[in-house]
Amino acid sequence: MPKTAAELANFLGAALEGPANLEVRGLASPEAAGPHDLIFVASAKHAGRAATTRAGCALIPAGVELPVKCVLRVPEPKLSFARAASWLLPPPELARGIHPTAQVSPSARLGSDVGIGPFVIIEDGVEIGKETQIAAYAFVGRGCRVGSGCRIHARVTLYAGVALGDNVSVHAGTVIGSDGFGYVYGEGRHWKFPQIGGVRVEDDVEIGANTTIDRGSLGTTRIGKGAKIDNLVQIAHNVVVGEHAIIAAQTGISGSSSVGNRVRIGGQVGIADACRIGDDAVVGAQAGVPTGKAVPPGQVVWGTPARPLAKFKEQYAWFGRLAQLAERVKAVERRFPQE
Amino acid sequence: MPKTAAELANFLGAALEGPANLEVRGLASPEAAGPHDLIFVASAKHAGRAATTRAGCALIPAGVELPVKCVLRVPEPKLSFARAASWLLPPPELARGIHPTAQVSPSARLGSDVGIGPFVIIEDGVEIGKETQIAAYAFVGRGCRVGSGCRIHARVTLYAGVALGDNVSVHAGTVIGSDGFGYVYGEGRHWKFPQIGGVRVEDDVEIGANTTIDRGSLGTTRIGKGAKIDNLVQIAHNVVVGEHAIIAAQTGISGSSSVGNRVRIGGQVGIADACRIGDDAVVGAQAGVPTGKAVPPGQVVWGTPARPLAKFKEQYAWFGRLAQLAERVKAVERRFPQE
Amino acid sequence: MPKTAAELANFLGAALEGPANLEVRGLASPEAAGPHDLIFVASAKHAGRAATTRAGCALIPAGVELPVKCVLRVPEPKLSFARAASWLLPPPELARGIHPTAQVSPSARLGSDVGIGPFVIIEDGVEIGKETQIAAYAFVGRGCRVGSGCRIHARVTLYAGVALGDNVSVHAGTVIGSDGFGYVYGEGRHWKFPQIGGVRVEDDVEIGANTTIDRGSLGTTRIGKGAKIDNLVQIAHNVVVGEHAIIAAQTGISGSSSVGNRVRIGGQVGIADACRIGDDAVVGAQAGVPTGKAVPPGQVVWGTPARPLAKFKEQYAWFGRLAQLAERVKAVERRFPQE
Repeated sequence: MPKTAAELANFLGAALEGPANLEVRGLASPEAAGPHDLIFVASAKHAGRAATTRAGCALIPAGVELPVKCVLRVPEPKLSFARAASWLLPPPELARGIHPTAQVSPSARLGSDVGIGPFVIIEDGVEIGKETQIAAYAFVGRGCRVGSGCRIHARVTLYAGVALGDNVSVHAGTVIGSDGFGYVYGEGRHWKFPQIGGVRVEDDVEIGANTTIDRGSLGTTRIGKGAKIDNLVQIAHNVVVGEHAIIAAQTGISGSSSVGNRVRIGGQVGIADACRIGDDAVVGAQAGVPTGKAVPPGQVVWGTPARPLAKFKEQYAWFGRLAQLAERVKAVERRFPQE
Repeated sequence: MPKTAAELANFLGAALEGPANLEVRGLASPEAAGPHDLIFVASAKHAGRAATTRAGCALIPAGVELPVKCVLRVPEPKLSFARAASWLLPPPELARGIHPTAQVSPSARLGSDVGIGPFVIIEDGVEIGKETQIAAYAFVGRGCRVGSGCRIHARVTLYAGVALGDNVSVHAGTVIGSDGFGYVYGEGRHWKFPQIGGVRVEDDVEIGANTTIDRGSLGTTRIGKGAKIDNLVQIAHNVVVGEHAIIAAQTGISGSSSVGNRVRIGGQVGIADACRIGDDAVVGAQAGVPTGKAVPPGQVVWGTPARPLAKFKEQYAWFGRLAQLAERVKAVERRFPQE
Repeated sequence: MPKTAAELANFLGAALEGPANLEVRGLASPEAAGPHDLIFVASAKHAGRAATTRAGCALIPAGVELPVKCVLRVPEPKLSFARAASWLLPPPELARGIHPTAQVSPSARLGSDVGIGPFVIIEDGVEIGKETQIAAYAFVGRGCRVGSGCRIHARVTLYAGVALGDNVSVHAGTVIGSDGFGYVYGEGRHWKFPQIGGVRVEDDVEIGANTTIDRGSLGTTRIGKGAKIDNLVQIAHNVVVGEHAIIAAQTGISGSSSVGNRVRIGGQVGIADACRIGDDAVVGAQAGVPTGKAVPPGQVVWGTPARPLAKFKEQYAWFGRLAQLAERVKAVERRFPQE
């Protein structure tokens, strides 16, 4: 069913300037947009990029003008663009019905309108909520609980007993519930510490591709509501990730560390074991947080070992001027030669 | 068959204090334990955490008291706990019998009691030892040899010709035997250097999820007996990992480097090509070991480029005091202004 | 059909010294070679390693002598060895014909001599060029285009709409076309920025195992002709990788960054968003390139934040001598005590 600019304006709470009945079919960049596409321009300084756009409709803030038929005035165009996307474009279908090649245990309980793709395995005692779609080769181990409206992409592996909330998306190749990395050395070898805990992923979490989330050793690994985790991330046993936290690609979080609510973690960050990252803190890309470190709420840390950004910048500036500092020491020495 | 505290004490060589016939069914943390669970307390300083435990049975060292029915005195409670886990809890079954959807080559030779899960592929000439379990979607390429008692989790990929010893565990999504990354540049393009060697993984190795281990180019990539490798680790062609080495998540070891016996490597470490890490050395998390570097046996190294820990700490301490050092230089300059 | 030393010499443009009809069957290291194997010795300094080789045939430069039956004189032995490998050893067959368990959409169009392995999924509207081989469990999503002569290893995942050129190799577990990591925060939660662009991988690219390449958000993620990408690499949305670029394992490239032609990037490098790495630049292992940074063509950069190698070495040398510098400051202070 076609959607109009007026409907979109209504959905977004935007002021409409232009033809109310313009049909909006897709989203695009200013360069690639066509007459039924929606674009956004975040601020006046980005308007140049859109000066020759063919887009039919644009989300722009007050004070910006663009040569488009239809303008939707909003205070935060990028946010409105993201919201418009969720409204205009249903996500691609991953599976519909239950594919005949799928192996679904008779003891599994599936909600209404669940989609199960080819070669999927659903083991004993699994529960899957309504409208969840599970793509090809996904493996859902014994006793897993998957909420409603979830999107489980191809070849995701859920070890036994993993629990996902509602509206959770997991991308291809990700493994949830693998054994944590814990051993005790004795008698000339490593003994495996029991890795018999669980994993709980709360509502509205999205997890990227080829990421790994280990089960708790004795406790539970938890990913809080609304958290977003990128590709190739490692989450170790017993880690707790707070609500709406953001964790960029290739970051690793070691055993029993906790990450607060709304924390933002850059790419390739390493957080050692037993750290506490306070709510709303920011950890810069490639930073290393040493064992047991507590980062206070709201603090921005950088570098290895991670320290407050201001401190990092100051130290780094001195580091960059070491040659000059040494030159000054030499000058002093020259003026006062040792007898 | 239920197991008693007395049997457990006997297995561990522990002194039993309390009812010999107490049934021990599981392992747990002090907080979560019930009356048939075993807990451990490593030392007096951790006893507070267990003061209100409901556990029926506890592994504790001499001199620690806990309000539990049954005490097992051991010198190293955490080690005994790990050993108890291996005795009390058989690992979860990955596969039993040969699933009808599995594709097993008629030329493959399977030992007794091998389990092959759904959609598994066993190619020509493969040999699999007795009691090995191979979970769903695992791919075992032409001519692979897999020992006895192995646990191959879902969607593990073994390229042709990979050899695993006995009691090897490999977690979901791990790839063993992929081509090494070697090219020779000439005539305006990269020519692939032959990647036709093998991979040999020795007995008692455990490998985490989504890890990659490349085959040798002309030689063999080897993982020594009892080594433990975490998730998302990269092991390049011709690498040799020593016995009982420990390699934490997201570490990468480049071509032709060797890691000695009992070496411990933290997370996100990078070891460049042709390095030699001596026996019992320790490489701290996020360290970078430069090309061709030899780390002597037993040395603890840290940082990038990796250097002995004492040196790292000293340099890092000076780094943190650079502002003060500069201030002191300034003070000297002020007192003796240049004419 | 057996191949002779004379044919090989002819293929390589090498001068032949020895029996023209010597049969050459394989390639090996000097230590492991047998009488029908080819080896190479790059220069006189490596000749010692081959002094006792049993190889029948050797690629060596002028001025080097070896006790082998048959010598092929070439200016760049390693390059000739790689070229010889491509001529002597056809890559192992991944699939032949269409396996009966494969799920191939009736609307897919397959070229001649395409091989499709067991449990492969080819969705609607896919096009696959001639002689491409697709191994077990590979997933080729709706509308993907795969060129001719490609080698898609086990359990590769191509999300819908991904385009691969000719002669592209992708190793096991790699995911191409997953959603980029983009959100807009508002109203207390993260809204997903649309990830509806494409991925285009050009001819002759090789991609390692368990790597992830995200689709463009609105634009296209592109991997240029002849580029080589190692294992566990992360390529974010809208990234452009130049022709014949080399990217080593565990490197991550953030959104909208571009990497020039023939750029070489070491392992575990982090490139933040919106960077520009110029043609022929080199980025050392574990380097971190900060947001928006432009590395000029041909520059060699090192460290975090990445800086020219000479600068890095100078700064690092001072860093290593900080204790001595502080000692010198102390000496000056001692000689002129503050009144």
